Amino acid sequence: MATPRQPIVTLLTDFGGEDWFVGAMKGVLLSLLPSARIVDLSHAVPPGDLRRAAWILKCARPSFPPRTVHVAVVDPSVGTSRRIALLHAFGQIFLAPDNGVLSFVLAEAPRPRLYRLARPDLRLPEVSSTFHGRDIFAPVAARLAAGLDPSAVGPRLKDPVRLPPPVLEREGRGWKAEVTYVDRFGDATLSLARSPRGAGSDFPAGTKEMRVRIGGRSTILPLQSSYCAVGKGKALALWGSSGHLELAVNGGSAAARFGLRPGDTVFLGPAPTKKR
Amino acid sequence: MATPRQPIVTLLTDFGGEDWFVGAMKGVLLSLLPSARIVDLSHAVPPGDLRRAAWILKCARPSFPPRTVHVAVVDPSVGTSRRIALLHAFGQIFLAPDNGVLSFVLAEAPRPRLYRLARPDLRLPEVSSTFHGRDIFAPVAARLAAGLDPSAVGPRLKDPVRLPPPVLEREGRGWKAEVTYVDRFGDATLSLARSPRGAGSDFPAGTKEMRVRIGGRSTILPLQSSYCAVGKGKALALWGSSGHLELAVNGGSAAARFGLRPGDTVFLGPAPTKKR
Amino acid sequence: MATPRQPIVTLLTDFGGEDWFVGAMKGVLLSLLPSARIVDLSHAVPPGDLRRAAWILKCARPSFPPRTVHVAVVDPSVGTSRRIALLHAFGQIFLAPDNGVLSFVLAEAPRPRLYRLARPDLRLPEVSSTFHGRDIFAPVAARLAAGLDPSAVGPRLKDPVRLPPPVLEREGRGWKAEVTYVDRFGDATLSLARSPRGAGSDFPAGTKEMRVRIGGRSTILPLQSSYCAVGKGKALALWGSSGHLELAVNGGSAAARFGLRPGDTVFLGPAPTKKR
Repeated sequence: MATPRQPIVTLLTDFGGEDWFVGAMKGVLLSLLPSARIVDLSHAVPPGDLRRAAWILKCARPSFPPRTVHVAVVDPSVGTSRRIALLHAFGQIFLAPDNGVLSFVLAEAPRPRLYRLARPDLRLPEVSSTFHGRDIFAPVAARLAAGLDPSAVGPRLKDPVRLPPPVLEREGRGWKAEVTYVDRFGDATLSLARSPRGAGSDFPAGTKEMRVRIGGRSTILPLQSSYCAVGKGKALALWGSSGHLELAVNGGSAAARFGLRPGDTVFLGPAPTKKR
Repeated sequence: MATPRQPIVTLLTDFGGEDWFVGAMKGVLLSLLPSARIVDLSHAVPPGDLRRAAWILKCARPSFPPRTVHVAVVDPSVGTSRRIALLHAFGQIFLAPDNGVLSFVLAEAPRPRLYRLARPDLRLPEVSSTFHGRDIFAPVAARLAAGLDPSAVGPRLKDPVRLPPPVLEREGRGWKAEVTYVDRFGDATLSLARSPRGAGSDFPAGTKEMRVRIGGRSTILPLQSSYCAVGKGKALALWGSSGHLELAVNGGSAAARFGLRPGDTVFLGPAPTKKR
Repeated sequence: MATPRQPIVTLLTDFGGEDWFVGAMKGVLLSLLPSARIVDLSHAVPPGDLRRAAWILKCARPSFPPRTVHVAVVDPSVGTSRRIALLHAFGQIFLAPDNGVLSFVLAEAPRPRLYRLARPDLRLPEVSSTFHGRDIFAPVAARLAAGLDPSAVGPRLKDPVRLPPPVLEREGRGWKAEVTYVDRFGDATLSLARSPRGAGSDFPAGTKEMRVRIGGRSTILPLQSSYCAVGKGKALALWGSSGHLELAVNGGSAAARFGLRPGDTVFLGPAPTKKR
């Protein structure tokens, strides 16, 4: 491939912002590819939280152009024999430890091609056993962003590690769904997508209310299109910006209100017909 | 306008750093304008805190060159019919929801021109109802940074939403002033500017002490030019880097010491003449 | 010097991310040098923590290419007559208050050249007494990154302020070492480097265990090469990514486990020979 003039590399890690780790990755990237445009997705993934990182990557992906190289270093097994995976999908490149962090992008990729990194010559000359973000991921990403063909990094990877997909099951006339993500505002995203594969998984057009059961408690929530459509402090459901159903509170935190955390399951059903 | 070679776009949001929201905005910006230089002003504005965001924008503005496009997305009413405003002032462009976040820049702009965004073709093809930062603000900013004339986004906006200006009133021989900002160090910035419009609003040159009354308590503070001019742990007043009077504690937090929060009012007066 | 096409400027401050201070520095930098590539090392240095900043700079330095300009603004004495130092070493440039923050880079530089900034014309026309990051450091850095010769900023600086080096002393058959850094994961870095100058300061090749004494308590820790080499929740020692011995807990925090903080001293010795 030819080198794009201003290649984009995104970084997603659990490194936090207080140390020099992210800076060191950027130093290596720019040393090898001075024209790189580096974009931070997040460095505040809780240490080792693969599901959260996988969800972030899935949601951020559509906002980036073809040829973007995404580097996800949430890597609790750094320094062991765990493999490093490259996913070529959506015209973009995803580089990460083979620990499942690519699962949710992989699951929606129409023609994913996966490779296993097997080229020691692409790494820094000296590789530590604790900081592969700097010593392996950054230099390999620089080479890919510079135009290296994804298939050149190593053989096909046929059995990538996959995280269990978020729970989403029919239950009566509704759905049992998983809280996949809680954001800074306390909005709780669910595994129910607006148009999941297969028919009938959506709520009928014109649905204005839904029943939500969390733990033993059932609530009727309005299904609206903006947080402000309900009064301040009131809860609602809406289709979020990544196409999934979201529980929210106008000016507040749905996660706090309902005690929701990623991994929890909730039941979503049609609201009882009003007779009044 | 011609495209600047390395156009600057700044971002100011209440999105925090833990999610992918800021990253997604950058992805859209760079998709449309690969040469953009993106600068984060802050993403740690408390959710919906318009006054804080407005103050940050006012203070950061003078450090940026003409043609900079500032994007401020603190937008609790996202998805409603609230308007989107473009302010052309100081040779720079400011894009934000029309909710007052531009007020403090607007108040000091000599010849502000305001427009209301009314060009659906400048947005992403698909616009969510909860993430206009990605779907509207980022693509419009990219086009403006690429040289689109500000007046091309829509009609004049004649009645922008304005936040109440910070309190600043004469009181006897002194001033009743508002705490406009508390920074990470606990320094409390006040609404009294070094050279506000009109005469006499400053303290006489050579003033070495001032009286500060907070709640019912009065203190005499030295007026100095650096934090270190007083002993470690001692309080002082000084003219801060944005031209406003600041209350500070050397090596400590004035906000904590005096229990100050943004919006509080304090009285500033001349120190009693020493007879000793 | 000629201008590099895409000059790198790194920023290391105690400004935090909530205010506009870092953004303002970047605005000034890009105003003067639109092609600058700005990399954040960290802005989360606790206010005034010179030792932490000095350690970050030392560890990040090797990941950056020649010609990089590093700007470190941890500057509790801003506005006083404290000097500003420029260190030219490793082909890179380091600009900082002369308060010791350059000490640890300086200590390992083979041919350091130090200068004292004495060129008011390199600063912004108006210089505040509280924000030299914006008014002095950023514009001087822009000029240096643009190719200004380091020796042009002022006379040689012969007596730079130096922080006391981290404790590292022979004690019997082992070492008394200092905790130099605790990172976000709770890993505690020690002053013992893999190959310190002088002979015999390392542990013999093949060492598999070591004795660590913290406060009055002694523990035997495995010396391994990756965090995962011990069971989840178990402690270990390893040679970290910057070449220093590190105490860590797999999936946990060594700092919390052992109550370690920067500045603490620990004793490292050979493990007793097993007779079993």
